[in-house]
Amino acid sequence: MNILDYETVDLNEEKKALVIIDQTLLPNETKIIELTEAQEIWDAIYLLQVRGAPAIGVAAGFGMYILADKIDDDKSFDEFYMEFVEKKDFLNSSRPTAVNLSWALNRMDNLVKLNSDKSIAEIKELLKKESIKIKEEDIAMCKSIGEYGLSLVKPGDGLLTHCNAGQLATSKYGTATAPMYLGHERGYNFKIFCDETRPLLQGARLTSYELSSAGLDVTLQCDNMVSSLMKEGKINAVFVGCDRVAANGDAANKIGTSGVAIIAKHYGVPFYVCAPSSTIDMNIKTGDDIVIEQRKPEEVTSMWYEKPMAPEGVKVYNPAFDVTDNSLITAIVTEKGIVRAPFDEGFKELFSK
Amino acid sequence: MNILDYETVDLNEEKKALVIIDQTLLPNETKIIELTEAQEIWDAIYLLQVRGAPAIGVAAGFGMYILADKIDDDKSFDEFYMEFVEKKDFLNSSRPTAVNLSWALNRMDNLVKLNSDKSIAEIKELLKKESIKIKEEDIAMCKSIGEYGLSLVKPGDGLLTHCNAGQLATSKYGTATAPMYLGHERGYNFKIFCDETRPLLQGARLTSYELSSAGLDVTLQCDNMVSSLMKEGKINAVFVGCDRVAANGDAANKIGTSGVAIIAKHYGVPFYVCAPSSTIDMNIKTGDDIVIEQRKPEEVTSMWYEKPMAPEGVKVYNPAFDVTDNSLITAIVTEKGIVRAPFDEGFKELFSK
Repeated sequence: MNILDYETVDLNEEKKALVIIDQTLLPNETKIIELTEAQEIWDAIYLLQVRGAPAIGVAAGFGMYILADKIDDDKSFDEFYMEFVEKKDFLNSSRPTAVNLSWALNRMDNLVKLNSDKSIAEIKELLKKESIKIKEEDIAMCKSIGEYGLSLVKPGDGLLTHCNAGQLATSKYGTATAPMYLGHERGYNFKIFCDETRPLLQGARLTSYELSSAGLDVTLQCDNMVSSLMKEGKINAVFVGCDRVAANGDAANKIGTSGVAIIAKHYGVPFYVCAPSSTIDMNIKTGDDIVIEQRKPEEVTSMWYEKPMAPEGVKVYNPAFDVTDNSLITAIVTEKGIVRAPFDEGFKELFSK
Repeated sequence: MNILDYETVDLNEEKKALVIIDQTLLPNETKIIELTEAQEIWDAIYLLQVRGAPAIGVAAGFGMYILADKIDDDKSFDEFYMEFVEKKDFLNSSRPTAVNLSWALNRMDNLVKLNSDKSIAEIKELLKKESIKIKEEDIAMCKSIGEYGLSLVKPGDGLLTHCNAGQLATSKYGTATAPMYLGHERGYNFKIFCDETRPLLQGARLTSYELSSAGLDVTLQCDNMVSSLMKEGKINAVFVGCDRVAANGDAANKIGTSGVAIIAKHYGVPFYVCAPSSTIDMNIKTGDDIVIEQRKPEEVTSMWYEKPMAPEGVKVYNPAFDVTDNSLITAIVTEKGIVRAPFDEGFKELFSK
């Protein structure tokens, strides 16, 4: 099956249901689930059935509409709004650190407040349209990143990516994968190489799955094989996603990204960071100001495995992210254009457009 | 338990048994097994119950003695030698690509041929002594590498290693781990960081196990976390083993080693290759002449796991080794001394000693 026939996150307008691919079952089972109840939607976000910053934002928009729609049309605005905020706070508690979750919920909240003079039925209709708009904007953003990214490579190129900044993390195309999907549509015959991305294996479980099921030529390798691939001349460019970009261009992304960037620089392979402009935070001066979360040891020592793969009680170093120094980044590809060093100046120009 | 209380490979002279730690059960179970029959010894090597080039050589020496000892003392030399060669060929078939296996067996064979004038009982005694000597030489070699390696670091240093070039791969001390063990004996308080080493996880299963059970301060991390560790200033030096060194200093070792070397160079961390002088092959001009074995996809996609961790049928890139360019190597530490660039000249001097 081609997962591109399905939407990562969608709204079934008739059933008033949030429709997602349950990502916890991938790559062994592709199950589409329909969620209509508050607890189901909360669980889907909490349990990572839907994941990836943009996809969570879209799911939150649809979820908020679906829950608001259950409120009685006969209520006064104040009564409606009280219930709305209660449901919003509940959804927002599912993954408190996910910026896109609160961003989407606040966007829906503001819409309600701005339309307090309208009927409840009219407000519900506006909420539906807004949630669909959040998704459409996400698709357009990814597609634009894809177009800019595609301009940096040529047919037949070998492209490497790390972790999953793919369609499964967004509504469509993904960010780092957007040039790959667009190139595939246009017969570029890329050879894609996916790092498995320990410890959570998003590259093996998700990226190699979504790209190969869409018909791209995909090869999977362990994270420590990047140098060997580049030495053999198999990689023409690297595309990665990012979680946050500082004003000077330092980019935080999944652990391992900075190592790939150093190795790419050594072999003269261009290293591109695909970043929605919303991830560029001009209030953060450099990557040193980005706090890196340490995660639990079991992800490294025993998760996925039949039995523990390390001695009991051994200390484990398990940061979720690392920061790639701007000097290692060839260009940052946003939906508004391509930015090269010096990045601070480039960002200022980008945001003044 | 402290695995240093046990020998990786030993001879029980009374029982005439090869005694090994069954490495296939580590780190979940530490089981010492005694092997006396040809098939048992063959299986132990074939199934990787004993592994690591030096350890295989020592096991082969003991195994050959044990099997030769079963031959009737009343036989003529020619009868004895025919049976000896038959058993030797059988053991040699257990892992045909392991150079140390045939090296040790040929050493035992030469000893027999040189002593054809002696009684069978005398020849058996000589074989026993020779097998013990192979082990003693291995321990002395490792210890000497350890002393030279220790001279390159200082108390309190953070040391990183990749894969297992440890005690479990040798008779004692290991090669890359030898400076760590010797430093530990002398109160150096090193902080050791072990790459888990995908796909076979030798770093997690073996290195972090042997070092922590010996009481060293050990932290385990995924292979893609090396850049993050070095950026935080946690690593003062890298020690790795090697399978083969070319005349120009290019060194083949477990996949991932060259990436660690590139990242170490980027952060200015010294990168040391621990190499018994027997692994330096002056007949190989450069690393380009070293053939790299590709291994099966299942090691990456499903081995160890409860269920497959990649989409069915995805292509996998899985080289067993990579070659670290001599320009990335700070020094090569042998049992005869430390060699720095230009390596070809250094090796010539080393071998002329």
